[in-house]
Amino acid sequence: MNAPARRASGGARQRLRLWLRLLRASRVIENDVRELLKAEFATTLPRFDVLAALDRHPEGLLMSELSRELEVSNGNVTGIVERLVADGLVLRTPLENDRRATRVHLSKRGRQAFTRMASAHQSWINQIMHGFSNAETLQLIGLLDKLKLKMAEARR
Amino acid sequence: MNAPARRASGGARQRLRLWLRLLRASRVIENDVRELLKAEFATTLPRFDVLAALDRHPEGLLMSELSRELEVSNGNVTGIVERLVADGLVLRTPLENDRRATRVHLSKRGRQAFTRMASAHQSWINQIMHGFSNAETLQLIGLLDKLKLKMAEARR
Repeated sequence: MNAPARRASGGARQRLRLWLRLLRASRVIENDVRELLKAEFATTLPRFDVLAALDRHPEGLLMSELSRELEVSNGNVTGIVERLVADGLVLRTPLENDRRATRVHLSKRGRQAFTRMASAHQSWINQIMHGFSNAETLQLIGLLDKLKLKMAEARR
Repeated sequence: MNAPARRASGGARQRLRLWLRLLRASRVIENDVRELLKAEFATTLPRFDVLAALDRHPEGLLMSELSRELEVSNGNVTGIVERLVADGLVLRTPLENDRRATRVHLSKRGRQAFTRMASAHQSWINQIMHGFSNAETLQLIGLLDKLKLKMAEARR
């Protein structure tokens, strides 16, 4: 094997190590968040993700837009929205120009519930990552932004 | 709000930003891997995770050990193992001192199948992260190791 090929193969091994660490870190945190959401709010991560997406769009979203927004999340969006509507946290309003289509958005109660969850969520993450300094946090954010950019470029 | 409290709150916001970026990066890659496993090996991520855990333990694992090994992974371990046994990729052998308990391990065919998948998996990750330099990869690994350590400390 020539030198460039050896280098490439070393790089591949390091990238695999990086991926396994990324995956593990995010699974560890995600499991904590899942358990805390269940214990403190009797809710699930996919429900929280849907509420968060709707909170980012106070004007409401078409179901297709919501699915796109949650593209990289798990769960059956339609079923989750139906249960959130039944629970009074999400409202459907018909579109003006197409009465058969609907836009979904948070109800007042949904917004209040999400605000409480989001605040708890932020403080859980702060506790979970407590001891990781602000400087390290910013450095890690910077590297993940660069990784995201490079991954987007590699897809083109 | 006094100055230390403002700083703490800024730290909490940064840690939340970090968490959202970690989650997004790992979901993007995980979705790619899920699709590639399906397209190229007609298999799933939880199956791949079980095969990988068994590959790391050639001596075999008790089901309880396998579950612990996959602690932060998803999926119904028992059901997955049953299908892998039915497919001839995993074998169960009774324990010598307790014939009712069994140890699971890869069959020869399972090991060969996993070796092919693992090699493809490494090259997918290498392509997905292509353009992210070796230096950046090592730096990111270092920061994730530090984060892991700090998170473990915060749990104590």
